[in-house]
Amino acid sequence: MTMIRTYAATEASKPLEVFEYDPGPLPDDYVEIDVMACGLCHSDLSMIDNEWGFSRYPLVGGHEVVGRVSAVGSQVKHLKQGQIVGGGWISASCQTCAPCVGGSQHHCHRAGPTIIGRHGGFADKVRVQALWAFPLPDGLDAKSAGPLFCGGITVFTPFIDYGILPTDRVAVIGIGGLGHLALQFAKAWGCEVTAFTSSMDKTNELKKLGAHHVVNSRDKDAIKALRGNFDMVISTVNVNLPWRNYLSALAPRGRLVQVGMITEPMPIPSMGLVMGQKRVGGSDTGSPSTMKKMLEFCARHNIAPQVEYFKMPDINDAIARLKSGKARYRIVLTNE
Amino acid sequence: MTMIRTYAATEASKPLEVFEYDPGPLPDDYVEIDVMACGLCHSDLSMIDNEWGFSRYPLVGGHEVVGRVSAVGSQVKHLKQGQIVGGGWISASCQTCAPCVGGSQHHCHRAGPTIIGRHGGFADKVRVQALWAFPLPDGLDAKSAGPLFCGGITVFTPFIDYGILPTDRVAVIGIGGLGHLALQFAKAWGCEVTAFTSSMDKTNELKKLGAHHVVNSRDKDAIKALRGNFDMVISTVNVNLPWRNYLSALAPRGRLVQVGMITEPMPIPSMGLVMGQKRVGGSDTGSPSTMKKMLEFCARHNIAPQVEYFKMPDINDAIARLKSGKARYRIVLTNE
Repeated sequence: MTMIRTYAATEASKPLEVFEYDPGPLPDDYVEIDVMACGLCHSDLSMIDNEWGFSRYPLVGGHEVVGRVSAVGSQVKHLKQGQIVGGGWISASCQTCAPCVGGSQHHCHRAGPTIIGRHGGFADKVRVQALWAFPLPDGLDAKSAGPLFCGGITVFTPFIDYGILPTDRVAVIGIGGLGHLALQFAKAWGCEVTAFTSSMDKTNELKKLGAHHVVNSRDKDAIKALRGNFDMVISTVNVNLPWRNYLSALAPRGRLVQVGMITEPMPIPSMGLVMGQKRVGGSDTGSPSTMKKMLEFCARHNIAPQVEYFKMPDINDAIARLKSGKARYRIVLTNE
Repeated sequence: MTMIRTYAATEASKPLEVFEYDPGPLPDDYVEIDVMACGLCHSDLSMIDNEWGFSRYPLVGGHEVVGRVSAVGSQVKHLKQGQIVGGGWISASCQTCAPCVGGSQHHCHRAGPTIIGRHGGFADKVRVQALWAFPLPDGLDAKSAGPLFCGGITVFTPFIDYGILPTDRVAVIGIGGLGHLALQFAKAWGCEVTAFTSSMDKTNELKKLGAHHVVNSRDKDAIKALRGNFDMVISTVNVNLPWRNYLSALAPRGRLVQVGMITEPMPIPSMGLVMGQKRVGGSDTGSPSTMKKMLEFCARHNIAPQVEYFKMPDINDAIARLKSGKARYRIVLTNE
């Protein structure tokens, strides 16, 4: 019996502690992964702190995993021991419901999120269904790639889902873990790219990441001046913004895509939707097919998360750093 | 000089009165239409009563016009005197801005709505730019067709704009002037059709209009039981509903399309958008190209507004009837 060693929350908002569990026999359709590195996502904090109200303890976060396959279930034919793979928010799907057979396995009626009802990647090992372990293409750096598997796919999927073209104008609100990847995607996609940020001191950095324009998200007049401009605005922040102004900044048929979870409802003016056939959407990770497209796209365009590394045993320091809002732009925990 | 005789509001919320105006010379790219019939739309009341705050008086409503071309501007080659045409919310566009040259003339930067800054179809004559006068195809009844040009196109456009397929499940909330056309469109489109209504006594009528299922819109449990069901829900009502439940009733990637103007912002839960990549959109009339597609579709599928007729001089009675909420399903004013 091999125990898996993790850093777990034993109750809400307490420091994580070492926690070991017996994973039992490896299911036939799963792989086990030796975790090399794991990104630290805001959703980990939300779950650790029970912000969404359904956390169960002990809770092991971590759902931006990169590692080496250490064991392969008996039915798994397409992955091999030793192969480097990544995994994200979802680690299991039923393969038989309508979304699954339709290629939208991330909308599986019985989807198993990596850190809900199972234990995640703040650990030496993690297990995922083989469908949800994605081989890294050549050219992607394994140590920093983890954040692609949750933060990255969340902002990549809208480009596919909303049919964004290289002739489109794309804006990103909030340039953190998700936003800094969205900027890189939009630039490589060939779009005109605008970054909305409350930290104008980041301007030069954001231009390096792909922004053609950087706009102060606290300057309502600057937003108003962009009336009718954008085909897609991705909001990565988890607070309400002056949506009326952002809807007005959309071109006809433009989309405002909210990917951060906001506690309060979003007050959306119907007039702002009706005039110009605009829409407000959300995005939640992506399908295995989109995940593979994203990884190839990143390799082809040299897109990589910009990260700060912490050693896994220093996870509580990493959490404090994330909460400080100062991380540039994502934190990754590494096992030696 | 030929004066145009209308029924106009001279101030907010007062009975309409006879009002005549001199339309001046006919612009080169316009046609003049002898109004045969004109639908009465909620937007007419909103403008007459200055609900949106920008009405100017005297105000002549009426933007669901069917009539006979009585005069043709010198540049107009594709329409002839005597031809029966219809016109809707918009009656002029610039033909040179980006939406215009892209085929979305209804999003023209300088679009001229028929009853804003000009005088509408509660009159013996009305003028519209020739692009916005649509010949009725054979098989459409002229007298009842008016409501297609605003109510109809508003709920038809989402089928085009959101790429609805005959395999989709479509629901309509609120079965009035717009909703009863949306049901017919959805049925002819080949979809599975659900009507949400607060008047369950309409059930048999709604089934005749195309609903496979009729659900009480006031029964939250019934809505909850439809979790994950719909690819598109069109809401034609102008009040806030339990959007959380309706978002939950959408299938992954489903769209909630709001076409009624709601005074208060819509409280939309971001979680309801994010989980399942759902979206909330609006729709505002449609392009000339979509208008023509709709008219052909209606002729091919025997789709027609179900209307109650009032004579034009009885317009104040017609308005009272519309306000009573009892009209089945649209009121049309006719000139003898």
